[in-house]
Amino acid sequence: MKTLTKEIWMEIPERRAIVSIHREVEHLVKGSGIQEGLALINAMHITASVFINDNESGLHHDYELWLEKLAPFDASPDRYRHNRTGEDNADAHLKRQVMGREVVVAITGGVLHLGPWEHLFYYEFDGRRRKRLLVKLIGD
Amino acid sequence: MKTLTKEIWMEIPERRAIVSIHREVEHLVKGSGIQEGLALINAMHITASVFINDNESGLHHDYELWLEKLAPFDASPDRYRHNRTGEDNADAHLKRQVMGREVVVAITGGVLHLGPWEHLFYYEFDGRRRKRLLVKLIGD
Amino acid sequence: MKTLTKEIWMEIPERRAIVSIHREVEHLVKGSGIQEGLALINAMHITASVFINDNESGLHHDYELWLEKLAPFDASPDRYRHNRTGEDNADAHLKRQVMGREVVVAITGGVLHLGPWEHLFYYEFDGRRRKRLLVKLIGD
Repeated sequence: MKTLTKEIWMEIPERRAIVSIHREVEHLVKGSGIQEGLALINAMHITASVFINDNESGLHHDYELWLEKLAPFDASPDRYRHNRTGEDNADAHLKRQVMGREVVVAITGGVLHLGPWEHLFYYEFDGRRRKRLLVKLIGD
Repeated sequence: MKTLTKEIWMEIPERRAIVSIHREVEHLVKGSGIQEGLALINAMHITASVFINDNESGLHHDYELWLEKLAPFDASPDRYRHNRTGEDNADAHLKRQVMGREVVVAITGGVLHLGPWEHLFYYEFDGRRRKRLLVKLIGD
Repeated sequence: MKTLTKEIWMEIPERRAIVSIHREVEHLVKGSGIQEGLALINAMHITASVFINDNESGLHHDYELWLEKLAPFDASPDRYRHNRTGEDNADAHLKRQVMGREVVVAITGGVLHLGPWEHLFYYEFDGRRRKRLLVKLIGD
């Protein structure tokens, strides 16, 4: 069994942003020499997501508005008890559950086995600091 | 390490539907000869989900109403910017995030290792065309 | 390839609760002798979740209120058709989709490869009876 382990550091200057990690993950898969296996790609921080969806800016705008409606930002400790700790990011912990922590993608014939519009993204919900995501590949 | 890779084509005549893929995936696991490992089952399109929950029609009806409330269908480009592209399926991209892209299931003793009520489903949010899901098995 | 399979029984005396399973899963990984691989941890019942987020009681309180708003408990068969079956737990099936069924975590150097605040939890949405979760490890 072959494996590859790679932590990727991110530093998003905004509080929230959707950033493509597609090419970097594709590159790691090709470099690994793994022909058949699984790729795990996950946020290592609990106020960020890794997800697969459309590479279309209008849709990304829609996610922003939608998540803000489902779990509004509110720094005060009144709406969110988590913010009594001195944090202001309770909403980020909620938004991340909707978008998910990780994706698992098949590796077939030495490449990510994806559908025609599947694109890999990192979603930052509480940026302006260094954070990591993890790529772990296993297979033959 | 053994692997099995199988794309399953779906063509749902309705816009939305929940379809059991349980038997087909069970069948693939048995045929693979894998005794111990992992099964990845994922939608290959970004307006569909694979999920595990109850095989009960009332609950499926509840999912329909609930998701429509969380992310209503609206073809107009006013509510969803994605629909300015000429698409009308922004809601489908949102609903799919709630229900998830994929499931990963253990293979133990040559079969899917599931709890008593766990049942595998494909959830189509924008059908009436041919789309695929992927089954990838790895193990010994 | 090495594997480890372990069902963990839970009996939560309350209807809902968030319970740490972090140490137990860490212990299983260490005992498995697997140095490089993947860990799947999933609820085996369809009204419970396994998720990774902050080990902070204020946040757990926020999840409770938030999920109750997104998918309110209502035992009557009027709001939820699932409850016409005699069940009263339709809300639990919905909440579990938001929080997810499973997590997949990398194993690197013989331990769970997690970020600084990542903590593994079981989320019970319909307790007061014996239920299981599954830990499946594969790797070398």
